[in-house]
Amino acid sequence: MEVKIRQVVNEDLLRERQKCTFDKEELTNLLDGGSDKTQSRRELTEFFISDKSLKDDVPPEYLSHKEKYEEAVRKSCLILKKIKDWESQSNNGGSAELFQSILGGMLGSAMLSDGVPFALHHVMFIPAVLGQGTLKQQAYWVSRAWNVEIMCTYAQTELGHGTFIRGLETTAHYDPRTEEFILHSPTLTSYKWWPGGLGHTANYALVMAQLYTNGQCHGIHPFIVQLRDEDTHMPLPGIKIGEIGAKLGMNATNNGYLGFDHVRIPRDHMLMKHAQVLKVDGTYIKSLSDKLTYGTMIFVRVSLIKGVAVSNLAKAVTIATRYSAVRRQSEMKPGEREPQIIDYKTQQHKIFPNLATAIAMTITSNWLWNVYSDVTSQLEAGNLDSLPELHAMSCCLKALCTFEAARGIEECRKSCGGHGYMTCSKLPTVYGLVTAAETYEGENTVLYLQTARYLMKLWHQVKSGEKMPYTAKYLESGLPSKSIPWKNTLTNLVEGFNHVAAGLIQTASDSLDRLVASGKSPEHAWNESSLRLVQCAEAHSRAFLVMIFSDYVTNVKVSPPLKTILTRLCELFAVSNLLRNLGHFLMYSSTRASDVDGLLQWQESLLADIRPNAVSIVDSFDICDEILDSPLGSYDGNVYERLLEEANKSPLNAEPVNVSFYKYLKPFLKSNM
Amino acid sequence: MEVKIRQVVNEDLLRERQKCTFDKEELTNLLDGGSDKTQSRRELTEFFISDKSLKDDVPPEYLSHKEKYEEAVRKSCLILKKIKDWESQSNNGGSAELFQSILGGMLGSAMLSDGVPFALHHVMFIPAVLGQGTLKQQAYWVSRAWNVEIMCTYAQTELGHGTFIRGLETTAHYDPRTEEFILHSPTLTSYKWWPGGLGHTANYALVMAQLYTNGQCHGIHPFIVQLRDEDTHMPLPGIKIGEIGAKLGMNATNNGYLGFDHVRIPRDHMLMKHAQVLKVDGTYIKSLSDKLTYGTMIFVRVSLIKGVAVSNLAKAVTIATRYSAVRRQSEMKPGEREPQIIDYKTQQHKIFPNLATAIAMTITSNWLWNVYSDVTSQLEAGNLDSLPELHAMSCCLKALCTFEAARGIEECRKSCGGHGYMTCSKLPTVYGLVTAAETYEGENTVLYLQTARYLMKLWHQVKSGEKMPYTAKYLESGLPSKSIPWKNTLTNLVEGFNHVAAGLIQTASDSLDRLVASGKSPEHAWNESSLRLVQCAEAHSRAFLVMIFSDYVTNVKVSPPLKTILTRLCELFAVSNLLRNLGHFLMYSSTRASDVDGLLQWQESLLADIRPNAVSIVDSFDICDEILDSPLGSYDGNVYERLLEEANKSPLNAEPVNVSFYKYLKPFLKSNM
Repeated sequence: MEVKIRQVVNEDLLRERQKCTFDKEELTNLLDGGSDKTQSRRELTEFFISDKSLKDDVPPEYLSHKEKYEEAVRKSCLILKKIKDWESQSNNGGSAELFQSILGGMLGSAMLSDGVPFALHHVMFIPAVLGQGTLKQQAYWVSRAWNVEIMCTYAQTELGHGTFIRGLETTAHYDPRTEEFILHSPTLTSYKWWPGGLGHTANYALVMAQLYTNGQCHGIHPFIVQLRDEDTHMPLPGIKIGEIGAKLGMNATNNGYLGFDHVRIPRDHMLMKHAQVLKVDGTYIKSLSDKLTYGTMIFVRVSLIKGVAVSNLAKAVTIATRYSAVRRQSEMKPGEREPQIIDYKTQQHKIFPNLATAIAMTITSNWLWNVYSDVTSQLEAGNLDSLPELHAMSCCLKALCTFEAARGIEECRKSCGGHGYMTCSKLPTVYGLVTAAETYEGENTVLYLQTARYLMKLWHQVKSGEKMPYTAKYLESGLPSKSIPWKNTLTNLVEGFNHVAAGLIQTASDSLDRLVASGKSPEHAWNESSLRLVQCAEAHSRAFLVMIFSDYVTNVKVSPPLKTILTRLCELFAVSNLLRNLGHFLMYSSTRASDVDGLLQWQESLLADIRPNAVSIVDSFDICDEILDSPLGSYDGNVYERLLEEANKSPLNAEPVNVSFYKYLKPFLKSNM
Repeated sequence: MEVKIRQVVNEDLLRERQKCTFDKEELTNLLDGGSDKTQSRRELTEFFISDKSLKDDVPPEYLSHKEKYEEAVRKSCLILKKIKDWESQSNNGGSAELFQSILGGMLGSAMLSDGVPFALHHVMFIPAVLGQGTLKQQAYWVSRAWNVEIMCTYAQTELGHGTFIRGLETTAHYDPRTEEFILHSPTLTSYKWWPGGLGHTANYALVMAQLYTNGQCHGIHPFIVQLRDEDTHMPLPGIKIGEIGAKLGMNATNNGYLGFDHVRIPRDHMLMKHAQVLKVDGTYIKSLSDKLTYGTMIFVRVSLIKGVAVSNLAKAVTIATRYSAVRRQSEMKPGEREPQIIDYKTQQHKIFPNLATAIAMTITSNWLWNVYSDVTSQLEAGNLDSLPELHAMSCCLKALCTFEAARGIEECRKSCGGHGYMTCSKLPTVYGLVTAAETYEGENTVLYLQTARYLMKLWHQVKSGEKMPYTAKYLESGLPSKSIPWKNTLTNLVEGFNHVAAGLIQTASDSLDRLVASGKSPEHAWNESSLRLVQCAEAHSRAFLVMIFSDYVTNVKVSPPLKTILTRLCELFAVSNLLRNLGHFLMYSSTRASDVDGLLQWQESLLADIRPNAVSIVDSFDICDEILDSPLGSYDGNVYERLLEEANKSPLNAEPVNVSFYKYLKPFLKSNM
């Protein structure tokens, strides 16, 4: 049946927007990092979303797995062409950030909601060649890749190894007679497994393999390997290749597997900016510093926080908030009109803390991005001092932000009831994108343990009176006395989070000491204490988010109404996090059991404070309907019309009677069982 | 490429099984409820899984949405036929439980992993007619439905109303001139939305609608409506029908929408066991008791706990445990072999508490099932006394069990790293099934609030000295004194959970009192206090799970080795739940901050205690490979071979070069951008 979408905005949403007490554009600019950035983001968005050839006739969820891939290749080619058009039109030149924002960010997810088979070409291959290739190698490969004469991917993870990179099994033996490397997969578990675009898309890959020369293993090094013929796309001899199959999400990324049967490549296909293998006798010349490759890892994690965690959480919160303002259900008072579900305290508690989290993460990721740029400049000047701190922060913040975003998205999805379970709501897709990031680019538990190792080192240093770096300054002040009364203030909250982190760091360190003192090996003690170590790293990153958010709202120059909103959001972020980690606060901060009722009341009143502006705050995220693409979250709030409109896109609904009735059901019903 | 699966069991799994200290068959029988039940379950399973026509050539995740549905109809017909064969073979007669166990339980999910379009015919329609139809109506409709001459569904939820049943908008007006009801959808939001099988499968539906006679509304009543022609399957005049579209999971259930345009049905299509509309003048005769219909709701929730929450959590834990025993990664000690990841404390902590939860829920759902049977007999004898208690328990236990199962499944999935993200691991599918149950048959927050209302009543009664029912006996003993020292014993844990529940009930009640005293209306106070009310209902159900599990392991007659295992699992269940809710324990139980280190150490040592038997415990769940259907969790542990085998089932891998290369990629790469 045909549905007509009303051209008017839902009256409840209209009323919500009339209640707005602040300037939405001011908040949008703030979150974008300036009004110029808002403008260029809007122009870029308009350039892409106005293109009808990038729209789906049939939503991808109705296609077969194979059709999804084919459609993604079609669109990816169009998008890359459009990027070039955009560059020449705007005289912008090509920047890797542009590709990343289009392929990986909000805009990309609007055009290719199920992932992009070409993504690693720009996001991993080109940066890796720039970072690890000689000038000559860069000139050749980056030029071919930049002009998209070849399509490349980055192949590191194997079937048997992801986290433990040193355990990768693919080998590259140097043969000085022919001046070639021989790439080989000695076991089934050594097959490359997961690289995006590897299945049927890329014809070249940067392959990470164990380098052997003169019978000696020198560890993991990068090799450019041709996988498929440039004309026929047929896999080259010795290349065993395919896709790894369907996944929870991102089914258009064409993740692939790859096995080598003694595949020979020229010597100069090993990237040799850092380490080298000499032509004649295969002598190995070592890299000066291993730390230089840390830069890329940190870059990817910092990007993930904004590009994946923040942007998807912002989408989910926008959908849930608008839907909750439109949806009316039950009776609060007998005889009265059914209330908007956003007026239920439980609903506010499912959504508003996540709204606050999205903003906390935006501000933190902006901060992290600035620090990353500073540290990169220092690195180029040969100064590695800030690297361990940045590395530690990028680990635990990536872990916390992807976890909290995924958790928050599911909370928002469930807050939309059954309708949130529908694919067209986009909430399942958004979750699929974010939960993947809890695992890739460093599994979250592993990352927390890396931060914990850094924190254990700091703890020993602070005990011997050393000065702490910025992000762990709080360790210098020690643990609080329980006799200091708790106060419901932001300053006090920030302190409380620091005290909890310090307390948990101490607990983890004490456990290590106790176990070693009882005769356990340090490795055993580490494993035995690892639950505590993870906890302290998590608390450290949580404290950091609270501190950065609080500093920001204290110092930012904005209009008073916006300042009030940001302050309430910061307080809600901190209080709701406190209450979710109440045990640690009762143990390590000055919070006492008798303070808890006051904290609960504070949370209840903060939810009420945010309630009137909730719709306007998500409006300020400025996610247009084409990008949000959710009947539950559309700007006009015509939820039910749009849901029916979406249902009618199902190919099953194109015919009144499905063929299975004639083939199976009718014979069965008439069979007189 | 071809993969050969080794016929031998992975050596790590072999070693795990050799370490087993208990009789696995004894545990299997215990969980099944007797060795006879184990045997009949195995016979039934074998009867179905040995049928090759029920196996997939291509896994459903590679099919289009339409193909998934068509394949599900084909298989559903075969399965229903086989059920009849089984009945006549086993002389069993037809039982609704049999249909439910096959269509809804583990076996059903093995044959139709994406849901069953016929499920509501047996699980909802027939029971509803039996419960609400007159004897004459039962004779006619149940006979037609039982012989599957017609295919039926149950249509209650609408686009605009799910939770609030009184708000349903579909109308049924009695027309005494023609002795007919006129079914009508006055608004878009009154469209039925969600019923399984409604889209293209059913030709009849039991429709819940607002009954109007003589101009008066009498509330929601059930009407049997023919939707489609029995021969052509074409929608009848005035019936607007289709499916609602793709979802996060269960894409073969064919959930549908349904709108009526003044559709007339005979008077005797209203089910009239309880309420009646007289033929001549449309006089309405009221039902004697509303409470009688509670029975079905309770039945469905009790069934959900075992059929959905427990069985899927058990699957996820089986997969994660076996995979973690096979997977080796990183170095614990430099130079040593990479450890099985199950030896990492963090990994144990992700999996073992969920293992314990699966067993806690099995035992509790068995208990609940017995109580349900008792109460049903009492109801039939006219005794309604136990109904409120059973209703309250079924609400909060459904909420807690579906939530904890969903949370646990996601934890298990993430514990399998990237490979858990693959559809073939089955972990995403299993999550999709369970998270749906967090919303349907009573949204979890709404259910908690129903239990909370019951608890608030009890709290007032206990304060005036009344005796408490079994499940709230703990309220009689009041709150503990902080001066009693905490002991790490199971008895003390059970008490602690009771104290927390009692403390939170008191806090919620105090908040209500405070707000009412300050002049708020009771409804406002209820909403303002609802976060606390949800918390107390959740704590009440958690305390109940701990108590039932603890009683069980204390009293069960089993061999000493099995008793030890069950006790450790019960302790782990309680301790890990305590640590996840530490704040409440520090506030309301005798746990003090100084006890926490001891609790952490207890948890660490329980994880170590369970470690040697972990694989054998999940083996005892006795989920055969055909039902588990996961390369990560197969009994033989040939994880990597099976992953590659699964990948090669992808239709994309059937051709070395995909058509998109010729159509899009090659022209693009050669275009000299």
